[in-house]
Amino acid sequence: MVTTPLSQIKIILVEPAGPLNVGSVARIMKNMGFSQLVLVNPQCNYEGEEARKMAVHAVDLLENCQVVSDLPQALKGCQRAIATTAVTRSLMTELEPPQSSLSWLLNHPSGLIFGRESRGLTNEELNYAQRFVKIPSSEVYSSLNLAQSVGICCYELYQQSTQISSPISPPVNSLFPSELQPSVSLDELENYYGHLENLLLKIGYLYPHTTSRRMEKIRRIYNRASLSSEEVAMLRGMLRQIEWAIESYPRLQNPPVL
Amino acid sequence: MVTTPLSQIKIILVEPAGPLNVGSVARIMKNMGFSQLVLVNPQCNYEGEEARKMAVHAVDLLENCQVVSDLPQALKGCQRAIATTAVTRSLMTELEPPQSSLSWLLNHPSGLIFGRESRGLTNEELNYAQRFVKIPSSEVYSSLNLAQSVGICCYELYQQSTQISSPISPPVNSLFPSELQPSVSLDELENYYGHLENLLLKIGYLYPHTTSRRMEKIRRIYNRASLSSEEVAMLRGMLRQIEWAIESYPRLQNPPVL
Repeated sequence: MVTTPLSQIKIILVEPAGPLNVGSVARIMKNMGFSQLVLVNPQCNYEGEEARKMAVHAVDLLENCQVVSDLPQALKGCQRAIATTAVTRSLMTELEPPQSSLSWLLNHPSGLIFGRESRGLTNEELNYAQRFVKIPSSEVYSSLNLAQSVGICCYELYQQSTQISSPISPPVNSLFPSELQPSVSLDELENYYGHLENLLLKIGYLYPHTTSRRMEKIRRIYNRASLSSEEVAMLRGMLRQIEWAIESYPRLQNPPVL
Repeated sequence: MVTTPLSQIKIILVEPAGPLNVGSVARIMKNMGFSQLVLVNPQCNYEGEEARKMAVHAVDLLENCQVVSDLPQALKGCQRAIATTAVTRSLMTELEPPQSSLSWLLNHPSGLIFGRESRGLTNEELNYAQRFVKIPSSEVYSSLNLAQSVGICCYELYQQSTQISSPISPPVNSLFPSELQPSVSLDELENYYGHLENLLLKIGYLYPHTTSRRMEKIRRIYNRASLSSEEVAMLRGMLRQIEWAIESYPRLQNPPVL
């Protein structure tokens, strides 16, 4: 098996009671590149119909999950453990948000622990973890569904692992959607602006004394759009057709086939 | 009702078919401080037992959700719209990750659009959005559950909103230079596209059978530019002057003083 920054992290559910939740956890784990699901004393049929229905193409994670009877067994072989919790209880510990804490697990044999749907983790169970994560949420209704909690943490870890593991690769996204297309040259762009300005002067939309101010506003729009060559060619085609229409009216009922 | 950076954002589900999903969406929305759920032509019983079971203490969001028959109705009153999608379909568009794009919706009447569980959004539906988000995921199994997708996006928005609402922090988003101008409403934008399409059909630049494909390319340009109200008014002024010119030729030597 290939070792990735995520493949060494166990997702540990303590006494899960909802088969839909366990199935959903399997799916989001596989979506985010995790493979090790550990169930501590499960209180539901984690291989039954409901769990499989939610797992969809991640049934293999349900079938290959490790089932143990207590948390120390689940953590066997781990070097680092983080527990998710909503309250500190008696611990003299700060709760951290996922964003700034979970990357600590990457590249180590480790465990990320989630408590029961109904009442989380006991104080004794919390003691097995070295750090504690709370997912930020509204005070109005702060209790998240188990599978959603796992989903958010797996998403954060996936993001953090891709940032760490691929220093050379270009960013997935770019500010401007046309970024990956060949950008237009500034000459082509100037030719377009010149073409547009001539047309607008000809039809009386621009006047010589207002032209530069108004063209500035128009340029700003197209500059923000970060046009590709193909798009500039399309916009110029529109201008040519408008010029043709102006000169051909009233023969306009039969526009030419281009 | 108190206006928060999140209370103006509609979570829009297009034809959701799973009541468990709709219930889960309601719960994570409330967890993350959202209140406006909009269902477009729902294909399931969104107030039934299964949905309520998953919503737990967010049943009020199910009961108060807005049900509409198509996406334009769902977006009425919105200034900004982002669609979530797994594939670009048409060229011209780059998919952005939630982390760097969703904050663009904050503090504006806006919509975050999620497609069908089975087959996402149609090309026509995608046209109503200005930007496109893809949640990063593993190539092995990239298709996320609907409620998980909503959960991750709501979590990102909640995080970004708490960062923004702290009074000291500088504006997070400077992607778009028109950021500080009042945004155009999507209605005004649609009126502009309609006006442009009519003109281009009339002059024979568009043909009925190529219109939707070509208009899609044109929309992409202007959507990327993130137009202000003032700019849309200017662009429509240009269209009116072009129409006038087409009908007035050859009196064109003396354009009217506007």
